[in-house]
Amino acid sequence: MVGSGGVGDAAARIAAERGFFERWVVADYDLARAERTVADVTDRHPGESRFVAARVDASSADAVTALAREHGATHVFNAVDPKFVMPIFEGAMAAGADYLDMAMSLSQRHPERPFSETGVKLGDEQFAAAGDWEAQGRLALVGIGVEPGLSDVFARYAADHLFSEIDELGVRDGANLVVRDDDGNEVFAPSFSMWTTIEECLNPPVVWEQGRGWFTTEPFSEPEVFDFPEGIGPVECVNVEHEEVLLMPRWVEAKRVTFKYGLGDEFIGILKVLSALGLDRTEPVTVKGVQVSPRDVVAAVLPDPATIGPRLTGKTCAGLFVTGTGTDGQPRRTYLHHVVDNTWSMERYGAQCVVWQTAVNPVVALELLATGVWSGSGVLGPEAFDAEPFLTLLAAPQPAGYGSPWGQDER
Amino acid sequence: MVGSGGVGDAAARIAAERGFFERWVVADYDLARAERTVADVTDRHPGESRFVAARVDASSADAVTALAREHGATHVFNAVDPKFVMPIFEGAMAAGADYLDMAMSLSQRHPERPFSETGVKLGDEQFAAAGDWEAQGRLALVGIGVEPGLSDVFARYAADHLFSEIDELGVRDGANLVVRDDDGNEVFAPSFSMWTTIEECLNPPVVWEQGRGWFTTEPFSEPEVFDFPEGIGPVECVNVEHEEVLLMPRWVEAKRVTFKYGLGDEFIGILKVLSALGLDRTEPVTVKGVQVSPRDVVAAVLPDPATIGPRLTGKTCAGLFVTGTGTDGQPRRTYLHHVVDNTWSMERYGAQCVVWQTAVNPVVALELLATGVWSGSGVLGPEAFDAEPFLTLLAAPQPAGYGSPWGQDER
Repeated sequence: MVGSGGVGDAAARIAAERGFFERWVVADYDLARAERTVADVTDRHPGESRFVAARVDASSADAVTALAREHGATHVFNAVDPKFVMPIFEGAMAAGADYLDMAMSLSQRHPERPFSETGVKLGDEQFAAAGDWEAQGRLALVGIGVEPGLSDVFARYAADHLFSEIDELGVRDGANLVVRDDDGNEVFAPSFSMWTTIEECLNPPVVWEQGRGWFTTEPFSEPEVFDFPEGIGPVECVNVEHEEVLLMPRWVEAKRVTFKYGLGDEFIGILKVLSALGLDRTEPVTVKGVQVSPRDVVAAVLPDPATIGPRLTGKTCAGLFVTGTGTDGQPRRTYLHHVVDNTWSMERYGAQCVVWQTAVNPVVALELLATGVWSGSGVLGPEAFDAEPFLTLLAAPQPAGYGSPWGQDER
Repeated sequence: MVGSGGVGDAAARIAAERGFFERWVVADYDLARAERTVADVTDRHPGESRFVAARVDASSADAVTALAREHGATHVFNAVDPKFVMPIFEGAMAAGADYLDMAMSLSQRHPERPFSETGVKLGDEQFAAAGDWEAQGRLALVGIGVEPGLSDVFARYAADHLFSEIDELGVRDGANLVVRDDDGNEVFAPSFSMWTTIEECLNPPVVWEQGRGWFTTEPFSEPEVFDFPEGIGPVECVNVEHEEVLLMPRWVEAKRVTFKYGLGDEFIGILKVLSALGLDRTEPVTVKGVQVSPRDVVAAVLPDPATIGPRLTGKTCAGLFVTGTGTDGQPRRTYLHHVVDNTWSMERYGAQCVVWQTAVNPVVALELLATGVWSGSGVLGPEAFDAEPFLTLLAAPQPAGYGSPWGQDER
């Protein structure tokens, strides 16, 4: 596992309860951070000796290859910011290991028409290497977090079991999370990597339509109020660039694929300001003789999402709203969803809910791959695999499963 | 003159048309910038040889003293960010020179009740040294830009000539400036130092009332729509911390003194976001091993206010709204104001209007001091001097005056 930030740390805590692996190498650029994760896991599970800490530079494919070879890794699990996707992806391939990630190689907007046409799409660099992976009999399972990840599993499940014809596969993500300071006042603190949030929210959103293919829009387009389950309620959602739109149409038949994120007014306002001021930029600027990337500064002034868990209350919901014709030939509208309450994830795993929800899915996938339930080669999304064993293993009570139920609302 | 940024550069361009001085030393931390100002002035006025460039570190009182002594300076004119007020103020004193600035020493909020009580107030550090300046027979003329500066001159003028009793001295500042990019789209680009704008707008605003003295409020308090003259029209104004509120009550009798800035909704929204995210902070943060101040990063990503002049359109208005009883015993409401059109200041001086409007006032004051029309010792605000010769010299057509008229609306 490359990266022991919020998601990597939570993945280790979840994996420690499972028996499907012999060794889990927790690697980070900051060795002390990797060691902290290993120490935490060992504290929680006395006698646990399968976790080892290592240092790795995720920007170097060679470093990833060397580390994977040193430990004879069968799988390289990428748990760092998406800007490091390509070196880890290539490093895993060179080491002869299978590869998993939770975000795909980054996009580049169309140079002339960024808000109508795609340029380089999310994952394009990875799919370009699909032939090599297939030829070598190796698997790159891309986008296997919660979104992308569980949302894609839902798409395959809907197509196989619920619908005869799908009009729209619409990922809808929303939450009612609130962060408070020591005095109980609400503060702004994103529950996920601010670098990644800026990247996905300010890039031109991508939409897929049958007959038209992929196209882009202006940021924050097509606002709609979506009613989230389990007490979260209505949240304003807008189009956001996300991997599902690039993944689902490759394996699941639908007329339209969208991703809308329940950012809410305040967060949209903040992102618009960051964009208007140029604070979203990644190219370094010179500040009093020092070179820094403005986006890195924004991330640095905000609380680390991995640390806000104790000050957070509320629930997060990931899900897929599917519309079309049911297997009975009748019109159908179904929201498949997965809700995590922060109080539960903090008590049970000491992990913040958004981070925990992201982390559990690749661990489930690794277990399915380790046990041979899932297998394949090439560069594949979660939709390429049978959804039912995944959803069963995720929801089944412990110790057989992961004890994290998902839901299905007919609307 | 310490500082050849936007305001210093414009002050040199204005001064070059006047005969009241023998030498004008343009000093900057960046010698090349000072040399550029001198070269520009010489280009515009062939044969001009009174301007010389020098390097100075404004954070060092000793460096300011040494430079002032080297040139036998009679006056040290501070034209840099207010964080350097104290070393320049002290350096001038040690050199035996008089001193002028356009912003006063910085405030520090009340540690327990920042939004109701003052802590260290604007100018407190300077007024603490007033006895020394008086004892040495030297003058520190503080706050002699446009606001503070011309606004304070208006206060003295209103008290001496228009009102028998003043209810409120209300500085009201507004503009209809728009900045466009090369494609003609409106962009966010502040017309004044972003560092200073953040400082004054996010600090708790200060208000003065007879019997109560100085007190503070929450940022952006008491919004009101003020109708600005000469086609600018109504703009939403809010309380902002500003020097006038600290200066006027010391010399002019009134029941209430306020400062409201026509920030407009968009700018208020931006400042609130910067504050919520902690990007207004001046203490350095560590970003990938480098130390930077977030506020410096915000200033660095925005266009330099000194450079936006060619892309700016509109007018800026500084003024003082006075209410009370007129000299005829009748209720009176008068708005004294000074409007500069960016097209005019760019054509005439190659200087952006907000910067030009700030720069003209200290040059007028220097001329009044050089010619002996104004004189004094101690730490004094513009209100301590007779307003009439200042307003006459500012408005009189060139070459006798500065050709920049002010207005008086009865409301």
